[in-house]
Amino acid sequence: MKILETRTAPNPRRVRVFLAEKGIEVPFEQVDLMKGDLKTDAFTSLNKLQKVPVLVLDDGTPICESMAICRYFEELQPDPPLFGTGPRGRALVEMWQRRMELGLMSAVTTAFRHLHPAMVSLEVPQVAEWGEINKPRAVDMLKIMDEQLASNRYIAGDAYSVADITAMVSIDFMKPARIPRPEGLDNLTRWYGEVSSRPSAKA
Amino acid sequence: MKILETRTAPNPRRVRVFLAEKGIEVPFEQVDLMKGDLKTDAFTSLNKLQKVPVLVLDDGTPICESMAICRYFEELQPDPPLFGTGPRGRALVEMWQRRMELGLMSAVTTAFRHLHPAMVSLEVPQVAEWGEINKPRAVDMLKIMDEQLASNRYIAGDAYSVADITAMVSIDFMKPARIPRPEGLDNLTRWYGEVSSRPSAKA
Repeated sequence: MKILETRTAPNPRRVRVFLAEKGIEVPFEQVDLMKGDLKTDAFTSLNKLQKVPVLVLDDGTPICESMAICRYFEELQPDPPLFGTGPRGRALVEMWQRRMELGLMSAVTTAFRHLHPAMVSLEVPQVAEWGEINKPRAVDMLKIMDEQLASNRYIAGDAYSVADITAMVSIDFMKPARIPRPEGLDNLTRWYGEVSSRPSAKA
Repeated sequence: MKILETRTAPNPRRVRVFLAEKGIEVPFEQVDLMKGDLKTDAFTSLNKLQKVPVLVLDDGTPICESMAICRYFEELQPDPPLFGTGPRGRALVEMWQRRMELGLMSAVTTAFRHLHPAMVSLEVPQVAEWGEINKPRAVDMLKIMDEQLASNRYIAGDAYSVADITAMVSIDFMKPARIPRPEGLDNLTRWYGEVSSRPSAKA
């Protein structure tokens, strides 16, 4: 079993933080998306969408998509539960994980991909107007998170979950995406300090 | 328990097809996103993101996001399994469900939202260039599906799953999104005929 990834990209980091929280060690192999490693025939045979990360099982089966990889390890080792507990709890984690992904991470990475000069050969064509539109959308989601965190220790409730992982990784990626973090979101700041100081955040 | 939805929108249809496959009946309440029903205080208190569908549990808890709602019912009633079986099977369903959602459904709905005159007051501002870019991306994903369906009865393998639901709903939504379906994708045509003739497709 191994994971192919590009260390600087946000999606692979979600998997690394997830595995660190579980205490699971998997060998990582670096492929550099900036150098065209994802366009090779060898990589494309593993993932036609030419994206990282990819988990390759011992039988050679490639599992693509960060959340599919995380769910695979959640099944293999349920503790600590990072996708919630019980039908209601798991639904709430899924709801917040998706809000963090579709509302925050997507907005941040869209701004990065459509505005950053380094992406010019990877996001073809870049649409600067679309990139700019996404910046305030990311900030709007931070405000919704701040409200949620006024009465919840973590994004999806009392327990740390994959929703916190997606949120933290997205917020850290606001720096290369050049989206300033607004001031005055005290609950968000409290939560960010807490999740960022977990050993997994360094993964 | 009830589900708030707009009947014409693609995401609520995913939940209706899912429930029909499970044989679960839940009362539906219509809110019309075209008439501004999602912008009211009452609806916003259920979902700050102002999107349908929303499942309201008996204790009043709102569960937003179609896939969170579907997973809730999968937990309550595991048979027939629509999110796969076993760690490897569930990971593959999640992988394909996400490919269908992020690669196909997102491209189709982006074309619709950024190009259709009916969306002018809901997608602000519309970016026509971004809408046009997404049309060929949807078609590219249909080609990947056609290859996958050459050796698999359903999108994620031998069993019908939530990945088929997202894919079928997305393909049907290509019509209002004005994306023509390319000819010559015979495996896709075989599969589409099969999933569309299931009773759940009428839900």
